[in-house]
Amino acid sequence: MATLLRSRNALSLRVFAIQSRQMSSYGYEQAQCLSFAKYGEPKEVLKLHRHSISPAHGNLVTIKFLASPINPADINQIQGVYPSKPTFSGSIGSSEPLAVGGNEGLAEVVSVGNKVSKLRCGDWVIMNGPGFGTWRTHAQTTEDKLAPIRNHEGVTPEQVGTVSINPLTAYRMLRDFVPLQQDEWFIQNGANSGVGRAAIQLGKEWGYKSINIVRQRKSEEQMASLREELKTLGADVVVTDEEVQSRDFPKRVEELTGKAPVRLALNCVGGPLVNFMAKMLAPGSHVVTYGAMSKQPVSLPMGLLIFKNITFSGFWVSQWSKLHPEQRQKCIDEVLDLTRAGKFKDTPMQKVKWTGDGKSLIDAVQGTLDGFRDKSIFIFE
Amino acid sequence: MATLLRSRNALSLRVFAIQSRQMSSYGYEQAQCLSFAKYGEPKEVLKLHRHSISPAHGNLVTIKFLASPINPADINQIQGVYPSKPTFSGSIGSSEPLAVGGNEGLAEVVSVGNKVSKLRCGDWVIMNGPGFGTWRTHAQTTEDKLAPIRNHEGVTPEQVGTVSINPLTAYRMLRDFVPLQQDEWFIQNGANSGVGRAAIQLGKEWGYKSINIVRQRKSEEQMASLREELKTLGADVVVTDEEVQSRDFPKRVEELTGKAPVRLALNCVGGPLVNFMAKMLAPGSHVVTYGAMSKQPVSLPMGLLIFKNITFSGFWVSQWSKLHPEQRQKCIDEVLDLTRAGKFKDTPMQKVKWTGDGKSLIDAVQGTLDGFRDKSIFIFE
Repeated sequence: MATLLRSRNALSLRVFAIQSRQMSSYGYEQAQCLSFAKYGEPKEVLKLHRHSISPAHGNLVTIKFLASPINPADINQIQGVYPSKPTFSGSIGSSEPLAVGGNEGLAEVVSVGNKVSKLRCGDWVIMNGPGFGTWRTHAQTTEDKLAPIRNHEGVTPEQVGTVSINPLTAYRMLRDFVPLQQDEWFIQNGANSGVGRAAIQLGKEWGYKSINIVRQRKSEEQMASLREELKTLGADVVVTDEEVQSRDFPKRVEELTGKAPVRLALNCVGGPLVNFMAKMLAPGSHVVTYGAMSKQPVSLPMGLLIFKNITFSGFWVSQWSKLHPEQRQKCIDEVLDLTRAGKFKDTPMQKVKWTGDGKSLIDAVQGTLDGFRDKSIFIFE
Repeated sequence: MATLLRSRNALSLRVFAIQSRQMSSYGYEQAQCLSFAKYGEPKEVLKLHRHSISPAHGNLVTIKFLASPINPADINQIQGVYPSKPTFSGSIGSSEPLAVGGNEGLAEVVSVGNKVSKLRCGDWVIMNGPGFGTWRTHAQTTEDKLAPIRNHEGVTPEQVGTVSINPLTAYRMLRDFVPLQQDEWFIQNGANSGVGRAAIQLGKEWGYKSINIVRQRKSEEQMASLREELKTLGADVVVTDEEVQSRDFPKRVEELTGKAPVRLALNCVGGPLVNFMAKMLAPGSHVVTYGAMSKQPVSLPMGLLIFKNITFSGFWVSQWSKLHPEQRQKCIDEVLDLTRAGKFKDTPMQKVKWTGDGKSLIDAVQGTLDGFRDKSIFIFE
């Protein structure tokens, strides 16, 4: 978690700050954040909280956020149903302990203490782990909590601010479970999600073919437009969840793939859809679960495990990132390089300008619960 | 499948047989087998069939069975619900195509053709793959279908005749999914089954500790006796399925293991019991399924996959054996060596003498469906 200074210590620190060459005595920041004191529905527990951040000293770094997305897991975290818990602390000048929402984002370093060695003012940084609290204008922390993005040419703050969760999840799931070969197939549900779109594009780049399941849209027109959009990204086949559950679907898959084996399934939905996916997989395949949008468990017939040798695994990018910090950095650099080369497009995002108006900010968070909307991202000035 | 001669060819073959040095012209065998012409309940579809086997010639081998167990999968195969199907063939002198029951067993070579190079009369052999049909007094086949047991000192036909399925399943499940270290724990249900008992003993031999779940017995006395029996084999902890599903069980596991992580679960039951097992596993653990005695699927909460990183896999010894014939032979030799050393005891078996009385033989098969009974094994004279 971020280490933040208590504002009541500001005076003594200011004296110290003036002694330090690397910061100005004018370095006080008026910060705002979307914070919560207890778990609950975002609209009920989130508040816009204002506090002051004193100049960075010693090993501290002050950062100013540029772009912070609203991911579904952020909402679950506020609801208290996510296993990675935020830290409620009194460090942002509040009378009761507060946690700040958001786990992902891009910030710029605006002030560094004299013991900070790796970061400089103007550097772009992303968070090294979950639970930082990124829905805020400014934060003060130590440099070990931050990963610098050395090259910010040719990428936007929104692109960098959303690189560490969804693209990384897609990247590792395509690489770490089944050694897919060129022209081999994978299947995924939730194909229109951030991870889904990333998997389509990374898969395309690496020569994999994809069957992409999306929810049936209300109109044929909406459906055609979504299909077209995903195909433009590189999707080979786009089908609806209803089509997948029809009796003749396994035959259709055979026609679509020319009977080539489908050896990997990515699942963020859960429920019976997963069984339909598993049934069309080749023996020895993997189903990797990274989300549970339907909130339904999978009822796993034992025969699928024993005789078809299907393995069911899970993937959690937070845990993976913690265990593999260097590989994480490499993946991020690779995705950003693909982005620069025009081979990786970020998910359509609704930009929400961060204003002092708490209600509109909180509405943007709450609105994320409607899964048919574009993902929202806070943009700071 | 076994290649068996049609009795109508007997005359011409007899002439050939007389020309061959390696067999006697008196080598005709009067064979009996438990066979079925269509899938169904064993007591309804199994028949005792008699036929004649002519002397082995060319690359053929005649074997005489010594011991053939009745495994639950054999019953499922007769019911038509097992993925590995028997071959219905007209090769055993029947008017309609017949399949012979049983997949595992030990036989002795009684006659070999002049092109047979690796086997000699008197050799003990087990089957190289499933679907052979082992509930028979004699069979004629080619040597590639048979694996010789070179050393039959210090082991009984029952021990060798039951080594290739249950002990092998336990062996591979303990070794191939989680690299357990000395003194690490695993948990298993169906601990009183053939595989369960094998896992207890192999685990003990390799320094692993086991939590063993058995079904609650009717009386305390029966329960105490079973507990004692499994502990004698090497079980560290024996608990009932009811105890496992009680609220305070995770705490009890912590007390029993001294909070050491349990990283592997073996499952042959299915249903909600598996969830209770999975809940007490350490993050990153594996649940390996090799049976589905309860016939219930597992309702898999997605969080168990994603956040606890539990992997659900299956193991099917037939498939494994097919892919790893050399490792299979090594495992079998190792288990038989442990048996000779008194470190591996076979599962209690009810010996069923093979008589000409079809009804009593078929009753023994049907009785296997009652899971509380000792496993039955046909013993041939």
